[in-house]
Amino acid sequence: MEGEIVAGVDIGGTNSVVGLVDKSGTILLKERFSTLAHDPPQEFVPRLVAVITTLLARLPAGSRLGGIVLASPAANARQGIIDNPANFKWGRVDLIAMIRRMLDVPTALINDGDAAVLGEMRFGVASGLSNVLLLTLGTGVGAGMVMDGKLIQGASGAGTEFGHVSIDPKGRDCGCGKRGCAETYVSASGVRRTVFELLSHRLEPTFLRDISFNDLTTEIISRLAVEGDPIAVEAFEQTGAYLGHILANAVAIFDPEAVVLSGGLVNAGDILMSPVRRSFEEHVLERYRGSVRLLTSTLNDGEAAILGAASIAWEMTIAASVRA
Amino acid sequence: MEGEIVAGVDIGGTNSVVGLVDKSGTILLKERFSTLAHDPPQEFVPRLVAVITTLLARLPAGSRLGGIVLASPAANARQGIIDNPANFKWGRVDLIAMIRRMLDVPTALINDGDAAVLGEMRFGVASGLSNVLLLTLGTGVGAGMVMDGKLIQGASGAGTEFGHVSIDPKGRDCGCGKRGCAETYVSASGVRRTVFELLSHRLEPTFLRDISFNDLTTEIISRLAVEGDPIAVEAFEQTGAYLGHILANAVAIFDPEAVVLSGGLVNAGDILMSPVRRSFEEHVLERYRGSVRLLTSTLNDGEAAILGAASIAWEMTIAASVRA
Repeated sequence: MEGEIVAGVDIGGTNSVVGLVDKSGTILLKERFSTLAHDPPQEFVPRLVAVITTLLARLPAGSRLGGIVLASPAANARQGIIDNPANFKWGRVDLIAMIRRMLDVPTALINDGDAAVLGEMRFGVASGLSNVLLLTLGTGVGAGMVMDGKLIQGASGAGTEFGHVSIDPKGRDCGCGKRGCAETYVSASGVRRTVFELLSHRLEPTFLRDISFNDLTTEIISRLAVEGDPIAVEAFEQTGAYLGHILANAVAIFDPEAVVLSGGLVNAGDILMSPVRRSFEEHVLERYRGSVRLLTSTLNDGEAAILGAASIAWEMTIAASVRA
Repeated sequence: MEGEIVAGVDIGGTNSVVGLVDKSGTILLKERFSTLAHDPPQEFVPRLVAVITTLLARLPAGSRLGGIVLASPAANARQGIIDNPANFKWGRVDLIAMIRRMLDVPTALINDGDAAVLGEMRFGVASGLSNVLLLTLGTGVGAGMVMDGKLIQGASGAGTEFGHVSIDPKGRDCGCGKRGCAETYVSASGVRRTVFELLSHRLEPTFLRDISFNDLTTEIISRLAVEGDPIAVEAFEQTGAYLGHILANAVAIFDPEAVVLSGGLVNAGDILMSPVRRSFEEHVLERYRGSVRLLTSTLNDGEAAILGAASIAWEMTIAASVRA
């Protein structure tokens, strides 16, 4: 996969983002669009290709698209297949083949969490580290881990699905078919579910009672929390307590130098991160207290995944199912 | 570390086992003794050295001890330190230095779970595999993981502490200072605690009411379960349900080819493993159902850790803090 420009694509449960990236890791142009993950992938692919070609047309003449690298949830990089992502109605789909029918460009696929951890290590807050766990807290929870500088992609190529660690076998229904998965609590949709659970338990007046489940966003909850809305504040307290406990367990499992948090939920800032840090310090093994760093991404809006995905276009050491 | 014979030592919360191993991986002689983990390590070391020298005296003349490799819980292989194992009153201890004061033999230290997973991959049920998670269910829970054929020892060298993943932040007190750790449920001491919890809830007559907490062993519970004792059966059902759920989460995290279970608790056989398999199939992500194997060790009584520990004496690719 050789070329001046690579398109890195971060496919999310709500929005997807395309970035055109040069070899130095600079995002030249970027555009986001709605994934509409409940529509079939046959409708997603033409929209994605249209975004890529529209962006390309804005580049100086002579620019050449050398490759496309897709970062997707539930992506199996060894098989080149997206396998039934939890918040999508896609099933098992060969997105590479569908793109290749429209564009004659080498195309590769990598797990979104794997792309994001590479992006953070090469261009973001984790640069200089070699043992890192990353969680992306978006519509769902993505994860990627690097140990001794090497991306851990697992036996099947699915990588780590930390978002589908069940923290309560009798807990909330998850899109994956299991119950109590971490992503049903510590994601953008999880905090929304926590708000509705609190509304069912509590009596305090709150503007949140005037918003439907489908209209409620993390931004609304976080703005209300900043304004002191008791339900919104408590929703972030509970989410932070869950997340701190999950991160403490992750540290016991992986013994990393740092955990990086990214994704839409992290944009809530201290309202989330203060209870996260309290809960983490309470639950983490004593030997890690004060030594393992909790970092939040400084790359916004899918940029870590875009940069990580684009960066693998120039190397072949990582399984990414390139089909040229 | 060169020599005809290596002593592999499996240090357990209840018993420790010394094996004298030749370069082919044959255990020539083996002896177990009580760890007495609540006594200081200054009392443990002379007893360990006495066991090693007594065994050596039984070997043919001309046999030479080329090295000692200790497999211990909470061992940090990079630092060569045992750091406050949960079921020991040892604190942070430099066992290598203490042994070297008594014996002029190169001595190394490795985490017990790491030693056991190497033993299983080189001489046991996991031979031929390259992505394996192992859990030893003894007094505590040890763990080791190999990904892409490489032992994962973590950033600090502590490796994975899967036994200290808390499955219930309000759960049972753990020796590590946290609450609800996996090893408070799915270990030899965990099943004993489950029996006592059941005795507090239930009224069925059972011989278990005549046994004190300190006198109760996994062997007694498992014999009673085979005879149909309702509390003993239920204790294994609950332990199996916990363990299956924990293993399903472990598979989501690591994407391994197989999970190997070993240690005293696994000797209970089908009484434990039937509920484990039911719970695992219920909780595992659909894509892994039927593909990831649950294996039980065929190496008994610390042999996996002894063989794994001894095997690293002849290589230097694994951090094991050799001091010659």
